[in-house]
Amino acid sequence: MIGIGVIGYGYWGPNLVRNFCDIPGVQVHWVCDLRTERLAGIRLRYPAVGITEDVDEVLRDPRIDAVAIATPVSSHFEIAMRALRAGKNVFVEKPITATAEQAERLNEEADRRGLIVAVDHTFIHTGAVKKLRELIKNDLGDVYYYDSVRVNLGIFQRDVSVMWDLAVHDLAIMDFVLDARPRAVSAVGMSHVAGVPENIAYLNLHFDCKLMAHVHVNWLAPVKIRRTLIGGSNKMIVYDDLEPSEKIKVYDRGITVDPMAPRASERIRQMRIGYRAGDMFAPQLDVTEALGCELREFVSCVEHGTRPTADGIAGLRVVRILEAASKSMANGGQMVELPQEMVLA
Amino acid sequence: MIGIGVIGYGYWGPNLVRNFCDIPGVQVHWVCDLRTERLAGIRLRYPAVGITEDVDEVLRDPRIDAVAIATPVSSHFEIAMRALRAGKNVFVEKPITATAEQAERLNEEADRRGLIVAVDHTFIHTGAVKKLRELIKNDLGDVYYYDSVRVNLGIFQRDVSVMWDLAVHDLAIMDFVLDARPRAVSAVGMSHVAGVPENIAYLNLHFDCKLMAHVHVNWLAPVKIRRTLIGGSNKMIVYDDLEPSEKIKVYDRGITVDPMAPRASERIRQMRIGYRAGDMFAPQLDVTEALGCELREFVSCVEHGTRPTADGIAGLRVVRILEAASKSMANGGQMVELPQEMVLA
Amino acid sequence: MIGIGVIGYGYWGPNLVRNFCDIPGVQVHWVCDLRTERLAGIRLRYPAVGITEDVDEVLRDPRIDAVAIATPVSSHFEIAMRALRAGKNVFVEKPITATAEQAERLNEEADRRGLIVAVDHTFIHTGAVKKLRELIKNDLGDVYYYDSVRVNLGIFQRDVSVMWDLAVHDLAIMDFVLDARPRAVSAVGMSHVAGVPENIAYLNLHFDCKLMAHVHVNWLAPVKIRRTLIGGSNKMIVYDDLEPSEKIKVYDRGITVDPMAPRASERIRQMRIGYRAGDMFAPQLDVTEALGCELREFVSCVEHGTRPTADGIAGLRVVRILEAASKSMANGGQMVELPQEMVLA
Amino acid sequence: MIGIGVIGYGYWGPNLVRNFCDIPGVQVHWVCDLRTERLAGIRLRYPAVGITEDVDEVLRDPRIDAVAIATPVSSHFEIAMRALRAGKNVFVEKPITATAEQAERLNEEADRRGLIVAVDHTFIHTGAVKKLRELIKNDLGDVYYYDSVRVNLGIFQRDVSVMWDLAVHDLAIMDFVLDARPRAVSAVGMSHVAGVPENIAYLNLHFDCKLMAHVHVNWLAPVKIRRTLIGGSNKMIVYDDLEPSEKIKVYDRGITVDPMAPRASERIRQMRIGYRAGDMFAPQLDVTEALGCELREFVSCVEHGTRPTADGIAGLRVVRILEAASKSMANGGQMVELPQEMVLA
Repeated sequence: MIGIGVIGYGYWGPNLVRNFCDIPGVQVHWVCDLRTERLAGIRLRYPAVGITEDVDEVLRDPRIDAVAIATPVSSHFEIAMRALRAGKNVFVEKPITATAEQAERLNEEADRRGLIVAVDHTFIHTGAVKKLRELIKNDLGDVYYYDSVRVNLGIFQRDVSVMWDLAVHDLAIMDFVLDARPRAVSAVGMSHVAGVPENIAYLNLHFDCKLMAHVHVNWLAPVKIRRTLIGGSNKMIVYDDLEPSEKIKVYDRGITVDPMAPRASERIRQMRIGYRAGDMFAPQLDVTEALGCELREFVSCVEHGTRPTADGIAGLRVVRILEAASKSMANGGQMVELPQEMVLA
Repeated sequence: MIGIGVIGYGYWGPNLVRNFCDIPGVQVHWVCDLRTERLAGIRLRYPAVGITEDVDEVLRDPRIDAVAIATPVSSHFEIAMRALRAGKNVFVEKPITATAEQAERLNEEADRRGLIVAVDHTFIHTGAVKKLRELIKNDLGDVYYYDSVRVNLGIFQRDVSVMWDLAVHDLAIMDFVLDARPRAVSAVGMSHVAGVPENIAYLNLHFDCKLMAHVHVNWLAPVKIRRTLIGGSNKMIVYDDLEPSEKIKVYDRGITVDPMAPRASERIRQMRIGYRAGDMFAPQLDVTEALGCELREFVSCVEHGTRPTADGIAGLRVVRILEAASKSMANGGQMVELPQEMVLA
Repeated sequence: MIGIGVIGYGYWGPNLVRNFCDIPGVQVHWVCDLRTERLAGIRLRYPAVGITEDVDEVLRDPRIDAVAIATPVSSHFEIAMRALRAGKNVFVEKPITATAEQAERLNEEADRRGLIVAVDHTFIHTGAVKKLRELIKNDLGDVYYYDSVRVNLGIFQRDVSVMWDLAVHDLAIMDFVLDARPRAVSAVGMSHVAGVPENIAYLNLHFDCKLMAHVHVNWLAPVKIRRTLIGGSNKMIVYDDLEPSEKIKVYDRGITVDPMAPRASERIRQMRIGYRAGDMFAPQLDVTEALGCELREFVSCVEHGTRPTADGIAGLRVVRILEAASKSMANGGQMVELPQEMVLA
Repeated sequence: MIGIGVIGYGYWGPNLVRNFCDIPGVQVHWVCDLRTERLAGIRLRYPAVGITEDVDEVLRDPRIDAVAIATPVSSHFEIAMRALRAGKNVFVEKPITATAEQAERLNEEADRRGLIVAVDHTFIHTGAVKKLRELIKNDLGDVYYYDSVRVNLGIFQRDVSVMWDLAVHDLAIMDFVLDARPRAVSAVGMSHVAGVPENIAYLNLHFDCKLMAHVHVNWLAPVKIRRTLIGGSNKMIVYDDLEPSEKIKVYDRGITVDPMAPRASERIRQMRIGYRAGDMFAPQLDVTEALGCELREFVSCVEHGTRPTADGIAGLRVVRILEAASKSMANGGQMVELPQEMVLA
């Protein structure tokens, strides 16, 4: 029996509790939140679950093997660190921490103690993104670009910009589906409400190979869009997460370049490019709830001491990009290099 | 009777000839192209039109009041300058020239001679873009962002990048519908075919006000997208040029910020933001063919010596941005300032 | 305090329990189902709710003011009748009963006892359908046609055809939004699985006025469609229930007929028809959960002895049409007249 | 050299002239129309083509091998018969004639004289419909239903109902892609403009096998829809002719019926139905202009004396259905049997 404590019961916490409760062999012992009004609902729905406002009450309980942290980003590091020091495994919402340095310290602490740090990069556990990874590995050929638009109206966060709130999803997905790691980042953004972080942002990821990645995030858009275009030398993909089915469409389209004419004149070279248009297909996707898959994996890692797909290192890589992007955004879009170890990782 | 010569009979030339022929009081006297095989079709369709490979044959003809130039960009300046020096008014394809300096010289020459230089910014003569301008002026409030995606598969141009081929449309539209002029430009892009200009590019336009503009152009996309999001303090717009009707949708959506609490704590300030969601409406649009409107305006300008909506100055502003964007793209996305006079214009 | 018993805890029962529990002043005392495995979940989620396999245990309980019946259609009549005889008000799933005669008897029994029979025509409590009713009353002019397509893959019902399962929604909506009542029905359908009722059907409703109604329902469609076209002399509507927002679009489109030329020749008369195309608008819709609105209305009716919007008479009208349509379907699509009182109602 | 005369130069005639002119070895000698103002444009565009108001001038010309008739439906028979009697092959717009009896007489006359009668069922020459036929033959399994919606605003015809104007396309497509022939027809429709034929209609085709076909046509719809659903035992198709690409989507979806339990109880039988959801694919389609393909086939038939795909018999089959449907519509939707020979054909 694996004992779980859930810390933070706002928007996402109830999903964590519900999904943990559905895993055989798992017992949620505690839910902790500072806002007592939120906890009232738990007592009715989950009479066996203890409720508290005190994190330490959770961390002191010897039945607790792991805590799931769904509090504001600014508190992730402190709570996670306390949990690790209390000998608990940690599952933490995205982004893992507010700074790369914090994420590094969490990873070190966890390694030292032989504990697990998992970050909730939920999307990488969806059927769609798992299929993306498979298609990119097997069918796309060289990946030319990754372009994501993730916009909607609201919800403005008070402690993080739209980049940390929305682009984090795209960075987590890219971290999972792409082989290459970015070398540098540039970003521009703007806030349209005084005293609130940027509500619109554009990120460019620069790689050492012939790949470009670009993310557009916006809390002030008239319509909701969740669409990613991925171009490869062999195939191209449209991933639209709002499609009820057919979220992923694979196009057998592209260009062909006639290699026979290296010294040809400009006009002749132009003739070398042909356009290829073949079938499109939309693979059937696994529709299991992503969070359920993810939490089952986490529980299994806790039981067997294995590493989760989105471990603290993945969380760190994503936060490094966000941190660099924030720096770039503050400097009018200047390119910011990422740590070299990251490129090599 | 206004006499016209059309120079260049490739993709666009036939549209120019057809539309000029439909204007009462206009006579197309010459079509000029170097590729004689292209001219064969003209003889059959327009037996009264002369055909030639020699631009000077057109420019020497005293019946010619104006020439329309639809040749590759690199030749625009030279042909247009010869036409002006021969005393002919000029209508030239977009972008007006390959460099800002060339555009300046054309404008000077035209002014000196009292001739007209019009640039074919076709989109600004569509019902959709005219409605955009009207909505932005009257309904949107402060304009927060302008975000355009203009992507498809092909056609790779041999002498210009995707930016000069596709983003030029967005720059022309912004020049027409926005009050503000950009202060600086940054752009990144990439070529995926050796020896061919960039086929994917992202442009940011920076303004002195709280406005951001961003353009994504791509010749290597699996699907065709022509979608612009425009956010304002009062209303927001989706302009999708591929919609058969309802190209423009105006959303009565946005946020409301409670101004009562300037010194409130962070948490309270967060509470200040409300989300407003009202009706959407799609105005009926004028469906007259844009090129026809544009050429009728040009002919009228030639007759009465008035300035066209897209004059050589508008063409110059657009080319300045493209030139700055190319410079930025060559320097890894570094911000490039635009001439100050442009901001003030 | 209003006491509720829920009978039937399959697909829809849990929604009834959850929504009743959210209404202040309402207490769900019992949930009854024959399948004990279904009841296990209730004990955990709603520890205060009694569970039983015996309907009479519910009906005997003096705390119970009303029962909500969510069992298979074939059992609606018997359970509802027993409930009425036990002095309980009744809320019953659609269709109200398996035959019109049963619905008549329920209505009589309820009237005799001063009890309420409400039928769960959920859709008429959605923001979209309430707006439809308003638009039809105020804006459409003469209603020319009502055309609904409601198709998807599955779920095949074992005791009723696709008509009784899906078209019932459209009939309930029409009963609510249209002034006119149908005079006759014709329907064709087919079963593609031996021993199972029709899985595809087309219904025509015939009216005394210039209105046609048509419904296409299908359990064997490759894609899910929920789209209704409504044409009026002044405006036309597209109601697409799968649109995330903008479920209702109102088109200022139609034809104009020049009345000046009654004796004109055929060719001239043809000239009389003009096509009018104006703005489209999509009104903001109330997004409150329909079932919640409906149950609050039902509870209020129980408290105050008022009639619900979808009372037993509305339920009867819909079942009469279904019954006539089944008869028509069994006779190769022959037109079947509806009872005259219905037209007059 | 094949000599062609085109009779009727309204909406479709110019397309015929343009496409015939593009076929090598074909010469359009005459265009004939009663409205002289229409003919003016021809003189300019096609100076080599003779123009006349007199059909006999065309039919007398010994250079003429075939005539293409694009006049109102009511005149098809008389002109086509005169052409056949003058020894000319005939290509006639859809529907082939205004009555089945006329079509029979044309076919007899053509057979007697060894001449060709082709009917312009343009859609069957599109890449989409050719692919449909291939998919239905090879992949769909048993065809369960064919459901088409073909609606838009206008254009009201003066001499035929919306059924003869729009449903004729669906009937021609079904005639080409389905193996089965309908046994009977029923239809309902309505006119909303006094003195004008029905502007909305619903047709049911009844077959001897487990196939249903249904067509909804409407000249008074707020939006344009061209969508056909085709269900088979193995695959299902959505054919949306308004999709710019991906007009045909093939869904690997359906139900599976467990055949092991023939005597099982009702509840068990219900369990037998499983839902299968696999990949979707959209085959690349031939984008050659359909009319060009069709006219090249017609010219080849004239040259070699072979039968066209849509010969006079296909035209007759379609008109028989339209005629029966009109009869049904006039009798409140009563089923009308089709001639038995048709079922056997």
